[in-house]
Amino acid sequence: VVAGSGDDAAITVPGGATVTSVDMAIEGVHFRRETAPPDAIGHKALAAALSDLAAMGAVAGEAYVQLGVPDAVGEDECLQIAGGMAAVARAHGVAVLGGDLSRAPVLILAVTVVGHAPSPAELVRRSGARAGDAVCVTGRLGGAAAGLQLLERPELADGLDRALADDLRARQLRPEPRLTAGRVLAAAGATAMIDLSDGLAADARHIAECGGVRIEIESGAVPIAAGVEEVARAAGMDALHLAAGGGEDYELLVALPADAQEGAAAALSSEGLELSRVGRVATGEGVAILDESGSEIDVGGFDHLRDRRSQARPS
Amino acid sequence: VVAGSGDDAAITVPGGATVTSVDMAIEGVHFRRETAPPDAIGHKALAAALSDLAAMGAVAGEAYVQLGVPDAVGEDECLQIAGGMAAVARAHGVAVLGGDLSRAPVLILAVTVVGHAPSPAELVRRSGARAGDAVCVTGRLGGAAAGLQLLERPELADGLDRALADDLRARQLRPEPRLTAGRVLAAAGATAMIDLSDGLAADARHIAECGGVRIEIESGAVPIAAGVEEVARAAGMDALHLAAGGGEDYELLVALPADAQEGAAAALSSEGLELSRVGRVATGEGVAILDESGSEIDVGGFDHLRDRRSQARPS
Repeated sequence: VVAGSGDDAAITVPGGATVTSVDMAIEGVHFRRETAPPDAIGHKALAAALSDLAAMGAVAGEAYVQLGVPDAVGEDECLQIAGGMAAVARAHGVAVLGGDLSRAPVLILAVTVVGHAPSPAELVRRSGARAGDAVCVTGRLGGAAAGLQLLERPELADGLDRALADDLRARQLRPEPRLTAGRVLAAAGATAMIDLSDGLAADARHIAECGGVRIEIESGAVPIAAGVEEVARAAGMDALHLAAGGGEDYELLVALPADAQEGAAAALSSEGLELSRVGRVATGEGVAILDESGSEIDVGGFDHLRDRRSQARPS
Repeated sequence: VVAGSGDDAAITVPGGATVTSVDMAIEGVHFRRETAPPDAIGHKALAAALSDLAAMGAVAGEAYVQLGVPDAVGEDECLQIAGGMAAVARAHGVAVLGGDLSRAPVLILAVTVVGHAPSPAELVRRSGARAGDAVCVTGRLGGAAAGLQLLERPELADGLDRALADDLRARQLRPEPRLTAGRVLAAAGATAMIDLSDGLAADARHIAECGGVRIEIESGAVPIAAGVEEVARAAGMDALHLAAGGGEDYELLVALPADAQEGAAAALSSEGLELSRVGRVATGEGVAILDESGSEIDVGGFDHLRDRRSQARPS
C-alpha cells in the first residue's frame, strides 16, 4: 500500500494475482435498522464481502467502502458502523484504503474487497468440481436463518437457552468470513469452492452449473447448528430447510478429491474448524438433496428469507 | 485478467502500481430519473469514477459495478443503464469484470474502478504542488452546471441556440473522463492533480490542503464554456459562479512547474485538448479567487447544486 484514502484513488503495488469482489447491503432489503445494531451492520457488510475472498482461497488485503447515509442516521451511528467494519478489518488484517460518503434515502453500504495470492493457480474457482469429488462444508449450518427468525419474531426465543439464542442472533448479525479455512482448503487441493450466502441448495447449484456436474447432498449429513432444531420447531418450520435453504451462514462449500478430504479435515481441525462431508459430485447436472431412502427433498421457497438476500433480482 | 464475473471474485495479475477508486450515484441525490435518461445514468456513474483515475495519470483497467434497482425500473431500463456504462468502458478500454445486482428503494450505482501505472512514481498525487507552480485546467468550465440549470428549468433554454443547449445538457449528463489528458499531464511533470467534481474552488482547496500551499485563481483567466454566460444571464446567476462553483465538469485541475506548462499545453493540443493557466501556487494556505483588482470573490453557496454532489456529507 503506497497511498490510502485522501487522494483521488488509493495506490497499491500488488505482487502475484489479485482477487476483487463487490458486495452491497441496503436497508430494508438486506437488513433492518430495527433489528441490526449499527456496529453489526458495518461488521456484516465487510464480512460478507470478505467471505467471497475466502471462497477463492485468497489472503484478504484491502477494502474500499461507500456509505450512503439518510438524515435519520446521525454521526454517532455512522461511527458505530465504521467501528464494526474496523473490528472485522483488524481481525483479518485488512487495510481500509478508501471510501465515499453520500446522502441517501436509506442506509447503503457498498463494499469492495481485494485479496491476493502468489499466482492464479493457487486460487480456487467455482468451476473445477469433478465427478467422484467429495462435497464438504465448514462449520454448522442454519444458525443465521434461525437467528433471523429470532430477530423478526422475538417470542420464538421464549423456551430457548439465552446463550444459545444470543449465538444464533450473532450468526445472523455478525458472521465471520472463513478466510483461514479458505486458504487451508485451497492448499489441501479443493477443486471448487463457494461461500454459503444464498444457502446450501442454491450455492451448490452454482458449483454444479459452473463445473458441468451434478451435486448430490445427503440430508442426514448436513451439520445443523445448535439451537436450530428448537427454533425451527417453535416456528413450525423444518430445521433442514433453515440449514439448507436459509443462507447467510457464510461457511464454505467445497469440492475435494476423495483422497484429499481427510487431510483437509485434519488441517482445518488444527485451526479449530470443522469439515463435514455432506455429499458427492456426480456426472449429470443440477443439485439434489436426498433423504435416507434416496428421494429428493425440496428445501427452497422461503420467500421471507429470499427477500433479504444479496442475490435478489429486481422483479 | 484471468477470470471475470461469474465466480466469487474476479482474478487479475497486475504489473506495477494499481490505483483504485470508488464512486456512488444515488437517485434523488446525484441524479433524477425525470431528467437523466437511463443510458446517461450509466454513462455518468462510470465516467465519474474513471475521472478519479484520470486525475492520478493512470491507465484505466477494470471496473466493478453494483446496481441497486427499485421495482419501478424495468429490465429494459436496466439494459440501457448497462449500455451507457458499456459504451464508456469500450471508449476507454475498460473491462467490466464483476458486479452485484440487488433490489433497492431507489436506483443506486456503486462503481469501483482500477487503473494501472508502471510504478507509483509515475502517478500524480494531490499533495505535490509547490509555490511557484502554475495552476492550469483542461477544457472549459461551467458547462455541467449550466446544463443542470437547463435540465431543471427547461424554460431557460428559450433564447438559446439548440445545439449549444444540447451540448450543455450533455456536459451534465454524459461527462467524459480526461484519461488521455491525465496521462499527458503526468508525463509532462504535473506536481499535483485532481478532477473537477466539486468545482474549481472546492477542488483547488483539496490541492492546497494536501500540499500545504495556497492557491490563487485569477477569475478572468477561468475558461468558461460556450453558452454558460447566456444560461447564467437567463437564470439570474453569475457565469463565474457556475464555472468555479458548479462542479461536475470532470476536467482536470493541475499544478505544473512554471517551465513545464508550455510543453504540457503543446502535448495536450496535439490530442485536441486545451490547457489554460488559471492561477498559481503560493506559500500560505487556502484558496483565493481574485478579481482584476486582486480582491477575493466568493463563488460558493449554491445549495441547489451542493445537494447534488457526490461529496455531500450527512447532516
